[in-house]
Amino acid sequence: MSDNNHGTLILLRHGQSEWNASNQFTGWVDVDLTDQGREEAVRGGTMIADAGLKPTVLYTSLLRRAITTANLALDAADRHWIPVVRDWRLNERHYGALQGLNKAETKEKYGEDQFMAWRRSYDTPPPELEDGTEYSQSDDPRYADLAEVPRTECLLDVVKRFVPYYETSILPRLEAGETVIVAAHGNSLRALVKHLDKISDEDIAGLNIPTGIPLVYRFDEKGTVLNPGGEYLDPEAAEAGAAAVAAQGGK
Amino acid sequence: MSDNNHGTLILLRHGQSEWNASNQFTGWVDVDLTDQGREEAVRGGTMIADAGLKPTVLYTSLLRRAITTANLALDAADRHWIPVVRDWRLNERHYGALQGLNKAETKEKYGEDQFMAWRRSYDTPPPELEDGTEYSQSDDPRYADLAEVPRTECLLDVVKRFVPYYETSILPRLEAGETVIVAAHGNSLRALVKHLDKISDEDIAGLNIPTGIPLVYRFDEKGTVLNPGGEYLDPEAAEAGAAAVAAQGGK
Repeated sequence: MSDNNHGTLILLRHGQSEWNASNQFTGWVDVDLTDQGREEAVRGGTMIADAGLKPTVLYTSLLRRAITTANLALDAADRHWIPVVRDWRLNERHYGALQGLNKAETKEKYGEDQFMAWRRSYDTPPPELEDGTEYSQSDDPRYADLAEVPRTECLLDVVKRFVPYYETSILPRLEAGETVIVAAHGNSLRALVKHLDKISDEDIAGLNIPTGIPLVYRFDEKGTVLNPGGEYLDPEAAEAGAAAVAAQGGK
Repeated sequence: MSDNNHGTLILLRHGQSEWNASNQFTGWVDVDLTDQGREEAVRGGTMIADAGLKPTVLYTSLLRRAITTANLALDAADRHWIPVVRDWRLNERHYGALQGLNKAETKEKYGEDQFMAWRRSYDTPPPELEDGTEYSQSDDPRYADLAEVPRTECLLDVVKRFVPYYETSILPRLEAGETVIVAAHGNSLRALVKHLDKISDEDIAGLNIPTGIPLVYRFDEKGTVLNPGGEYLDPEAAEAGAAAVAAQGGK
């Protein structure tokens, strides 16, 4: 650890959700954690405490699986009382018309190439989800202030909404020496890591973030990352978890 | 309900805590909920949803039992995503040197009169808790910004810290038409209800607030309470719960 270590950023992807377990595309659909996901959250919080990290502020998306993960992790870390900021810009990528579909069935129906393009293309979103349908958020009160609720998003769309928010709201806290925990999602965290580690539009396709294992970045007071790539608090489990994410779409 | 109904205030006392169950004075000691307490919290959230109430902002104390109650209740009410404000001014009354003691043993040792004076005297606090002892919060990081961490408090002390905060932070939101949920404690809620219902220093001794049952006040746009005394969402259960609180100290 560098002596310039000043601010600390802890990224935490939510634990297993009901639709992770049933292998469905989730996006902005507000599914709950499974019991396994709750256990992952508690374990993540214990890792944070064991590493001697003391978060001073929490950022979450507006989705239950990230919010509950943060609640359980911070309680386990005895930091349940810190200030909370919630923002839709931390939400998972909106998965468009794929929301609710089974991943294996989708892969079988549309073929491997189309399936991977929808999952990992940087700038091509899936087909739009029609407003007012079962898995649309067009009438969800939590997004009432948005000029337009997304109907689909590619990773570039997530970068465009999340990175500017990170730079104006989160980075200043890191420069000021805070320890910020961000409880979010596979693709919103991929968007942020792409920015932090200057990963190319092509290479980001190969990056997978495991659930429930804190990923820690250290910053100097100018906001420069001191440990590019970050540091998982349980590197072995992180490797296995990332491989499991990459393998999704199997039956 | 009056047609002038504008803002709505929902008061929620945390569900049963471990030290409610073991009959110990708690105060600022950060004990967890019991399973029964968690169930109460979920039930409280369901009552809020069933009443058609949609909280727009949450205020909690810095204590786990109120924070977890709020988390569970709002999740059950599908309002887990609303903004959160935490403040020490919503904390339970600091119980001084009584913190950690068994209520029945204390009553036996000091007698009924002294016991009730400590529990219900408006302006006489229990003996001070010594800094650095097991149940003191003198070194707790969450209170690091306070000029002085309390060593004991009477209800008047809670009124002095909470009511001005309510008037500057919460009341303006009610006047603006928001639905504010306050997740807090027996004595911080008694302090607020004393203010809302203009209860005298003597009569407040007889007021007991049950755990886990939302108490709802309606406001007009000038901040006047439209339903003095408020309205419990389950009046029968509230009556039984208040009687149980009043009877504490028995074995």
